[in-house]
Amino acid sequence: MRGPSASRGSYPRGPSPVAPGLPERLGRTAQLLSRLPGVGEKTAQRFALFLATADEGVARELGRALAELRDHVRPCSRCGNIAESAPDEDAFCSVCRDPRRDETLLCVVGRVQDLLAIERSGAMRGRYFVLGRLLSPLEGVGAEELPLDALKERVRADAVAEVLVATPPSVDGEATALLVARELQALGARVTRIASGVPHGGDLEFADQVTLGRAIEGRKSFG
Amino acid sequence: MRGPSASRGSYPRGPSPVAPGLPERLGRTAQLLSRLPGVGEKTAQRFALFLATADEGVARELGRALAELRDHVRPCSRCGNIAESAPDEDAFCSVCRDPRRDETLLCVVGRVQDLLAIERSGAMRGRYFVLGRLLSPLEGVGAEELPLDALKERVRADAVAEVLVATPPSVDGEATALLVARELQALGARVTRIASGVPHGGDLEFADQVTLGRAIEGRKSFG
Repeated sequence: MRGPSASRGSYPRGPSPVAPGLPERLGRTAQLLSRLPGVGEKTAQRFALFLATADEGVARELGRALAELRDHVRPCSRCGNIAESAPDEDAFCSVCRDPRRDETLLCVVGRVQDLLAIERSGAMRGRYFVLGRLLSPLEGVGAEELPLDALKERVRADAVAEVLVATPPSVDGEATALLVARELQALGARVTRIASGVPHGGDLEFADQVTLGRAIEGRKSFG
Repeated sequence: MRGPSASRGSYPRGPSPVAPGLPERLGRTAQLLSRLPGVGEKTAQRFALFLATADEGVARELGRALAELRDHVRPCSRCGNIAESAPDEDAFCSVCRDPRRDETLLCVVGRVQDLLAIERSGAMRGRYFVLGRLLSPLEGVGAEELPLDALKERVRADAVAEVLVATPPSVDGEATALLVARELQALGARVTRIASGVPHGGDLEFADQVTLGRAIEGRKSFG
């Protein structure tokens, strides 16, 4: 049995003990389910019990889908976004295949989830580069674990004019943004950062101090 | 594609739309994951993305485990508890295989989860019968959908002296308990009900009126 995945953003967890009273196989299934993000031991047991007692097709269909998932869905060879492809082909995502995208504007994100959120906003007309993780001293992630060489190569090869760093406005996200900016400035590309401030529809009364501070620092003139 | 499972206690849900921006296969996987109890569309998408981007082995191992789960884990042929067995054998659970259990004491529960909770308490020395669902006028579950004939047959065949009805102290649970009691009393078995009252460690101040009322009604003498 393999340890929990070293995926970004989740804390390493040891294997949980097989639950008493459950058949061994069900306990193992619960263990596997507890690797899902935000799923603890109890929830995993609930999922396993549901799958063992509900309509048989639910477990079988889901099992088949998950077993095959990684044959067809994999990171885009160019940007790291998820892409669908045949098992033995290079995968290119829908953004990289879109000829209307501006090659000279590159948005750097931490995770695929962030890329999808930006795509939903419809505000990004360029392409992407997914780092896969953020610099994190607390979790022991150093600069050498970020794909900075691939990013520099991409900026050079595509003659990128602007790199928009869209890592989250958190401690790790800011540290990553600073690192990316420092690495890329030598290449002559303009490096920008997404704005941070009070969210749309947000209430000033309940905004935290740092957010309000940033909203004021980042103020803009009308017109 | 099959509809959501008609498992007890969960509301029927229509298939959710495939998420925009996700490869189609990932959207379908998210749909299947959203059948898990308490998992909505957003959480299912998060699970699917995690499985598509984390260490490849996570999705494959979980997929294999789920696809095979129902070949090995199935309801006990006697009591309905989950049991592990080879694909072409009758399954008997660990309680039914335990020769030290009192055959003449039968505990009737609504769900396997409840059986497991009672087993964890260590207070039940008899055997079980899992109804699989509760009587529920609101969800349209009538007496004819409960396995009452199988229960009566079990009570007769095992010469059960006491049937302890351990359905939850909810509206549906109480209605089910009354129905079971009425059906079994003709057979000459003593039918009992689990006590309802203030939970161990509970605070009287925060107990609801019904619970307090039951705690007082069910009061016992010292010694």
